[in-house]
Amino acid sequence: MKNCMVAQSGGPTAVINASLAGVLEEKLRRRAYGKVFGAIHGISGLLDGQVFDFGERAKDTAFIDRLKITPSMYLGSCRYKLPADPVEAEPYYKQIFETFEKDDIGAFFYIGGNDSMDTAAKLAAYAKEVGSEVRIVGIPKTIDNDLVCTDHTPGYGSAAKFVATSVLEIFHDACIYPLKSVTVVEVMGRDAGWLTAASALARTEYSDAPQLIYLPEVPFDMTDCIRKVKDLLSVRDEVVIAVSEGIRDRDGNYISAAYNNVDEFGHAKLEGVGRILENNLKAATGVKVRSVELSVLQRSAAHIASKCDIDEAAALGASALSASAEGESGVMPAVVRKSDCPYAADIELVPVAGVANAVKNVPAEFIAEGGYDVTEAFVAYARPLIEGEAALSYANGIPEFADIRHLTSKN
Amino acid sequence: MKNCMVAQSGGPTAVINASLAGVLEEKLRRRAYGKVFGAIHGISGLLDGQVFDFGERAKDTAFIDRLKITPSMYLGSCRYKLPADPVEAEPYYKQIFETFEKDDIGAFFYIGGNDSMDTAAKLAAYAKEVGSEVRIVGIPKTIDNDLVCTDHTPGYGSAAKFVATSVLEIFHDACIYPLKSVTVVEVMGRDAGWLTAASALARTEYSDAPQLIYLPEVPFDMTDCIRKVKDLLSVRDEVVIAVSEGIRDRDGNYISAAYNNVDEFGHAKLEGVGRILENNLKAATGVKVRSVELSVLQRSAAHIASKCDIDEAAALGASALSASAEGESGVMPAVVRKSDCPYAADIELVPVAGVANAVKNVPAEFIAEGGYDVTEAFVAYARPLIEGEAALSYANGIPEFADIRHLTSKN
Repeated sequence: MKNCMVAQSGGPTAVINASLAGVLEEKLRRRAYGKVFGAIHGISGLLDGQVFDFGERAKDTAFIDRLKITPSMYLGSCRYKLPADPVEAEPYYKQIFETFEKDDIGAFFYIGGNDSMDTAAKLAAYAKEVGSEVRIVGIPKTIDNDLVCTDHTPGYGSAAKFVATSVLEIFHDACIYPLKSVTVVEVMGRDAGWLTAASALARTEYSDAPQLIYLPEVPFDMTDCIRKVKDLLSVRDEVVIAVSEGIRDRDGNYISAAYNNVDEFGHAKLEGVGRILENNLKAATGVKVRSVELSVLQRSAAHIASKCDIDEAAALGASALSASAEGESGVMPAVVRKSDCPYAADIELVPVAGVANAVKNVPAEFIAEGGYDVTEAFVAYARPLIEGEAALSYANGIPEFADIRHLTSKN
Repeated sequence: MKNCMVAQSGGPTAVINASLAGVLEEKLRRRAYGKVFGAIHGISGLLDGQVFDFGERAKDTAFIDRLKITPSMYLGSCRYKLPADPVEAEPYYKQIFETFEKDDIGAFFYIGGNDSMDTAAKLAAYAKEVGSEVRIVGIPKTIDNDLVCTDHTPGYGSAAKFVATSVLEIFHDACIYPLKSVTVVEVMGRDAGWLTAASALARTEYSDAPQLIYLPEVPFDMTDCIRKVKDLLSVRDEVVIAVSEGIRDRDGNYISAAYNNVDEFGHAKLEGVGRILENNLKAATGVKVRSVELSVLQRSAAHIASKCDIDEAAALGASALSASAEGESGVMPAVVRKSDCPYAADIELVPVAGVANAVKNVPAEFIAEGGYDVTEAFVAYARPLIEGEAALSYANGIPEFADIRHLTSKN
């Protein structure tokens, strides 16, 4: 019986390890492969020979369950992209497939975003070209939710749940003083506004925060934003704004770049877009303005991961293993939505090459007229993805995650 | 039967509403007072006549339970301090006690930090002076944990649990790339380092993050910090630093002020201390450095509140009501620790005047030699305070908090 290998790549999510857990679980169920190997730091670790045998851990259901709720990447990550030029890339492919051969690998699973799907597509094409029987299957993940060919991506729902919960808690914080105030919440998403849009999920019967939502899909105009904030402040005290780090002006320049001047020493001032809005709104309105950058917390906050997200991430991992066992290669399991409410979705295989290097932006029907809010259709789309809570266990008052000392250089 | 009144003041915590819930619960249990009034926006609302009758809500156990897990202040807040000069303050006292008389108030509960305890002490002294029978009882709260006469303050445990959990999740995030990196986590606490110290609770069997902890109690030296980070980077890849927003240099100047120059337009650059360390460490080490400001999330993240904290906050609210019913005035229920492990504590009354205007810093025995870490004694002290999780309910994927539309100007 052949062995299989898994690696992870790109930026962290709260549930990328749930997909790894899904691979391990399905391998146990199907007895499709012998050993399970992990490559540390994605493809770059595979090239460096940083490969290990999961051994007994591959059968340890307590370990697998803990992986499901462990944030970031158990196998580490890389930002490595194989050369585009096939001749230049050839030696890398050769080396990777030699490693596969050495470890008697029958299937390789690569969990990641669109760069990783590009790698998976290239490896699958190479395998076909050289007649290798190693099956290459991609498994989607990204908090950005910007992969094509899938209804959504694992990692998005949990990040969205953190953003929505934080914005609601920030609203509670913002209401306590009888003063006019503006709170700017900066959300990740350099090119696509999905995660910033999820701030709308914070709204309740008693809270309409955020009152303004700025996505990278809509050109940002500071003058117009200031006018809207002033209008809101004329009828209410507290204004909460959700803004994507990736908003751009009409010419496509990032606001974070456009407003970052060089200081008197010639150093670029590296302020985030939240701070830029804070400074501009403070100067224009005279009221109390603060900005909150959700930063890496939004991609790593496994303590408030979505159960829907965890379950789907695991199911996609399991599907990837099943697909390979059934002879598929060059594919990625994708989510196909059947219904919003009650939420229902299937998993279907799509060609991984079709996913590589494309970006799915927030479509027009999800952006409200005027461009500073989302539609009810977006809320219907996103709501089910943040439903349910992770079954965390706590020890000493903090969540019990999987031990990652193998990733730290000290140990 | 007399009525009673509650108000809240100072900065938000995740559990200040649990103390309000404790007052309501104990009032139900003891049938000590008739109606319960709430003053909106603390003393300033009391002066403005913003007072309402809780009505049926004071008996609604579902509402009371939801209050216990609702962040920030259900009654709003103020930063109002009564004039220090008794003659100047006299008209304010008069007005407040006229409101008490109008609503037939027998007891007033003020939930807050040391400024609020100052107000409670002044009101209690005035009541005695003028022969008023209104009993004034303070109820402690602050994430800063800097009140004297109490082992710790409600609000601290939940903020500490958020800080510890976030630092652990940030550690998972920081380990994924085979690169040297530094992550600076900026924690609230302008004068006392209790909350920054709580970052040590993030440590597990597999993680020693944060490796450096900088408190306001110890003078900060940038050169020494850079040297320590370089030393750590020479033997390991990832360094996580927890730093208090309130660190100061040897002369007592805030680092955030000392390193914030004025820009070419004469505007002060208002960078946080995390960003200042980020910039300095980046320049000095050349490795990837990022800073994460936990911002208002740490005081409002009710979704990860500590059960120990919620229970104690409610118990202190209940004790305040009991104390007033038993004739006490000018007191504050305080936590007296009996044992660290297993954790045991009693509630005892202390004079509220003794709590006002004093600050409890992190003592020397909790600061490790060298001044850049905490001791095991601190961990033993702080650990029980973050134990246990809140019994949250979720609807639509986000926590169900109490409706605060009465605080919003729009509704």
